[in-house]
Amino acid sequence: MFEIAELGHKVSKADYLEKVPELRTQLLMLQQELRSQDLSVIILISGVDGGGKGEVINLLNEWLDPRLMRTNAYDSPSDEEKERPEFWRFWRTMPAKGTVGIYVGSWYSQPIANRVYGKITEPELQVHLRHINELEQELANDGTLIIKCWLHLKQEQQKKRLKKLEKDPETAWQVTARDKEHLKMYDTFVSVAENALKETSTAANPWRIVEGSDIRYSSLTVGQHILDKIKLHIETKQRKESLPPSSDTPQIIHGNQPSILDSLDLNLSLDKKPYNEQLNYYQGKLNKLARQAHEKKISSVLVFEGWDAGGKGGAIRRLTHALDARNYQVIPVAAPTDEERMQHYLWRFWRHMPRAGKVSIYDRSWYGRVLVERVEGFAKDPEWKRAYSEIVNFEEALTRHGIAVLKFWLHIDQDEQLRRFKEREQISYKKHKITEDDYRNRNQWDAYSLAVNDMVARTSTQSAPWILVEGNDKRYARIKILKAYCEKLESLLD
Amino acid sequence: MFEIAELGHKVSKADYLEKVPELRTQLLMLQQELRSQDLSVIILISGVDGGGKGEVINLLNEWLDPRLMRTNAYDSPSDEEKERPEFWRFWRTMPAKGTVGIYVGSWYSQPIANRVYGKITEPELQVHLRHINELEQELANDGTLIIKCWLHLKQEQQKKRLKKLEKDPETAWQVTARDKEHLKMYDTFVSVAENALKETSTAANPWRIVEGSDIRYSSLTVGQHILDKIKLHIETKQRKESLPPSSDTPQIIHGNQPSILDSLDLNLSLDKKPYNEQLNYYQGKLNKLARQAHEKKISSVLVFEGWDAGGKGGAIRRLTHALDARNYQVIPVAAPTDEERMQHYLWRFWRHMPRAGKVSIYDRSWYGRVLVERVEGFAKDPEWKRAYSEIVNFEEALTRHGIAVLKFWLHIDQDEQLRRFKEREQISYKKHKITEDDYRNRNQWDAYSLAVNDMVARTSTQSAPWILVEGNDKRYARIKILKAYCEKLESLLD
Repeated sequence: MFEIAELGHKVSKADYLEKVPELRTQLLMLQQELRSQDLSVIILISGVDGGGKGEVINLLNEWLDPRLMRTNAYDSPSDEEKERPEFWRFWRTMPAKGTVGIYVGSWYSQPIANRVYGKITEPELQVHLRHINELEQELANDGTLIIKCWLHLKQEQQKKRLKKLEKDPETAWQVTARDKEHLKMYDTFVSVAENALKETSTAANPWRIVEGSDIRYSSLTVGQHILDKIKLHIETKQRKESLPPSSDTPQIIHGNQPSILDSLDLNLSLDKKPYNEQLNYYQGKLNKLARQAHEKKISSVLVFEGWDAGGKGGAIRRLTHALDARNYQVIPVAAPTDEERMQHYLWRFWRHMPRAGKVSIYDRSWYGRVLVERVEGFAKDPEWKRAYSEIVNFEEALTRHGIAVLKFWLHIDQDEQLRRFKEREQISYKKHKITEDDYRNRNQWDAYSLAVNDMVARTSTQSAPWILVEGNDKRYARIKILKAYCEKLESLLD
Repeated sequence: MFEIAELGHKVSKADYLEKVPELRTQLLMLQQELRSQDLSVIILISGVDGGGKGEVINLLNEWLDPRLMRTNAYDSPSDEEKERPEFWRFWRTMPAKGTVGIYVGSWYSQPIANRVYGKITEPELQVHLRHINELEQELANDGTLIIKCWLHLKQEQQKKRLKKLEKDPETAWQVTARDKEHLKMYDTFVSVAENALKETSTAANPWRIVEGSDIRYSSLTVGQHILDKIKLHIETKQRKESLPPSSDTPQIIHGNQPSILDSLDLNLSLDKKPYNEQLNYYQGKLNKLARQAHEKKISSVLVFEGWDAGGKGGAIRRLTHALDARNYQVIPVAAPTDEERMQHYLWRFWRHMPRAGKVSIYDRSWYGRVLVERVEGFAKDPEWKRAYSEIVNFEEALTRHGIAVLKFWLHIDQDEQLRRFKEREQISYKKHKITEDDYRNRNQWDAYSLAVNDMVARTSTQSAPWILVEGNDKRYARIKILKAYCEKLESLLD
C-alpha cells in the first residue's frame, strides 16, 4: 500500500515556485465558494514521524485564508477532555459550515499509537476504526468533506531525517527520545498504520498516501489533492441539487401493526399517600446513589421527551430535588442558535456533555430530529431517516464511556392533554407555557404517534433503552422515573 | 457587620409552607419578565461553612424555572482554566441575557481562602477585591443584576451543625477534615470575610448578610431578597427608559490638538533587498523566541487593527510564517453571532483566550467597540465611552496572567487606501475583499481618525501599549511588527 510513496518523488525549486501561486489563488477562490455554499471541510494530516506533517500544515496555513480556517492540534487530552467520551474533543472544534478545519493528531492518532505500543489488541483497534468510520460517515452525510492525507517515509529516510535534525543545533531540540524509539518500531508502526488506513479508506472518505521525503513534492501534492477534492465536492453537490430528490434512503416500516404506545396502560395510578411515601423513599435513595455516583465519577445523561403537557417539568423537578444543585444541569432544548445551525445537528448536544460525576438533564433532546423535525418537515427525508442510526451511535459512545443514559417518554392521551392545557391557562405563572403552537400540534397527534413509535422501535438499545412512562397520572409517572434512575445507578455502581 | 445575622432568626414550618408558594409564583413570573426584557441576573451564594449554602441553592433550583437558569459550581480550577486568566472560568459560564446564573464558589472564594490561609498578603487581597469590583461594575453597567448573599453563622452554631452532621451516619461523610480545620480558623475567616464584604459592598452591587442558623429563615430571606432586587431592577430599567438619555457619562476630550496619527511619518519605507534580509532575520528570530515561549508556557494575544486595506492580512501572514501552525489561531472578528449578542461585548473575546503557550491573533478585536461601533452608532454613547476603561481592565487581566499583549494599528493615508482598493479589484482572489462598505467607510475618514486618536490616547498602557505602524510601505510595516513581537517575547523570556 505504501510502495507508491517510496519511489523518490521530487519537485525542483523552480517547478515549485512556479506552481505555488496558481495553487494558492485557486485554494483561496475555493474557500470563498465553500463559504458561500456553507460547506465545511475537514483535512487530516497524518503520517510517520519525520514525514513532514508540521511543514505541510504550516504551508497550508500560509496558503489558505486564515479567516475561514482553523488548525486544531491534539496532543494528550486535557482533564476536561478526559472526562468526556473519546470524540468529544473533536466535536468541540468541528469546523462550522463554510470553514476548513485542519486536524493534527486526529482521531486516528491514539488508536494507532495504542496498538503499536500493545496497549490495545487487534480486535480492540478494529472497534475503534469502526467508530471512526461511523463518525466520518455521519459527517460526510451532513455534507462535510473529509480529506485524509498520510505522509509516508521509508525507514532509512526517517533515520536520515532525524540524523539531519540532530546535527543542526537549531533543530536538535525537535528530536526526542520518543522519536528514536519510534524509529525502532518503524515496521510495527507501518504495518498497524497500513491496516488502519485500509479499514478506513471508504468510498466516501478515502486516504491519500503521499511520499514525504521531499517537502516540495509532498506539500504540492497535498495542496493539489485538497484542491481537487474540494472542486469535486462542490460540483457533486451542485449536480445533486439539480436532480430530483432520491428516495434511496432507509425505509421506515409501519402499518396497522399494534403500536408500542397503544400498549401502555394509561389507567395506572398512585394514590396520594403511597405516592408521598414512595416519593420520600426514592428521593432519599436517589440522593444516596447520586452521591456515590458523583464520588465514583459516573456521569448521567437523562433525556425527557413526551407530549406537550406530558409532565416533563414536574418529573424533572421531583428528580432534581434529590440531587445536589452543584452537580446537575437542566438543558432546555429549543430552536438551535445560529452557531449551532452551522454544525452537524448532534453538535449542540455534544457541547453539553457533563464532566465526570455530573448530571446533564435534557428537557427535549436530539430526538427532536425524528419527532418535530420529521413531522413538521424541518428535516429532509434522508436527514431524519439516517438520524436513527446516528443517535444509536451517539448514545453508544456515551454508554461506552461509562455514562448512565436514561431516556424517558412521558405518554398521555389526547383527553388528558386537553385537560392540562385548560388547567394551565388558569394558573398565572403557567399561562405562558400554553401557546397556539400547542393546540396546533394536537392536530398532528397521529403523525407524532407514528414518529414516536418509530423512534422507540429504532433507538431502544440494550444499553440505552427507552423507558415509556404512563403519564396520565403524574404521581405514577414521577415514581416510575425516580425508580428507573435509582435502578440504573445501582446497576452501574455494582 | 455580622451582628445582624446572629440574632437567632427563625421561621416556623407553618409560616414557611404558607409563604413559599407565593414566593415561587412571583419568582417564576419575574423570570418570564427577565426573559422578555433580555435581562440577566447573577446570584452569588457565599458564606461560612455550615451556613446552609448547599440547601439554599438546592431550594432556589427547585423554585426557579430550570429552563431559564443555570447553577455554576466552582471548585478548584481545571487545567484548561488554570491556563487562562483568573476570571476566564467565570466568563465562560456567564448567564446569557434573559437568564439567571447562580454561582457557588464564585470569584470571592479563592481570594478569601488564600488570605485566610496566609497565601496572600492583605494588600494582595485588596488588589483582588479591586478587580472584583471592576468586574461587577462592568457587568452591572451592561445591565446585569448582581445579587450577593452571604450566609452567616456564629461559631458555636457552626460547631453544633458539624457535630449534628457527624452523628448521623447518613450525613457524616459531608464533614471533612477541612471543615474541622475551618472551624478552628473561624475568627480569622470571619474577619477576612467581613473586610472583603465591606470593600465589595458597592452602591450598585451590595452584599446582603443572612443568618444561616435556620434553613427556613435563610432560604425564605434569600428568596425574598432575590425577588425584591429583581423587581426593583426591572422597575429601574423601565423608569430609565422613559427618561431622556442622560449625558452623565465620561467625556472624551479632543479638539484641534495635534493628533497622534498625524505625527506618524508615512514616508518611512524599506527597499526590497534589506526587507528580504530583515524578513528572514526576524522570522528566524521569532521562530526561536516563539518556541521558547511555547516551552515556558507564555501565551500571546496579538491585536491587529487598522484602516481597511491597511495590510493586516499580509502582516499577519508574515508573522504566522514564523510560528508553528499547531500553536496559533487567527480569530477573524466580524459581526457577533446571536449567542455572542446575548452577552457582555467582551465575552466573545474571552472565549478565544489561548491555552498556555499558545498564540491568539485577533484580526480586528474588542476595539471595534470604540471604532466602528462608535462611529456608526452601533453602540450607545455611554457604552463606548465606558469601554475604554473596560478594555484597559481586560488587557490588564491578560498581562497580569503573564500573557504577551501586543496591539498594532496599521496606519495608511487616504490616497494609499484608494490605490490599494483599486489594486485589489484587479486581483481575482482579492476582489471579494472590496465591497461597497469599504468605499462608504472612506467617507467617514475624519470620524474614524478621531476615534482612533481617542482609542490610542486612552488605551495605551505600559503593559499593553499601542504600536502604531507606519503602513504606507508594506515592507516597512511588516518588519516593524515582527521586530516588536520579537522584542516583547525577549523581554518576557528574560
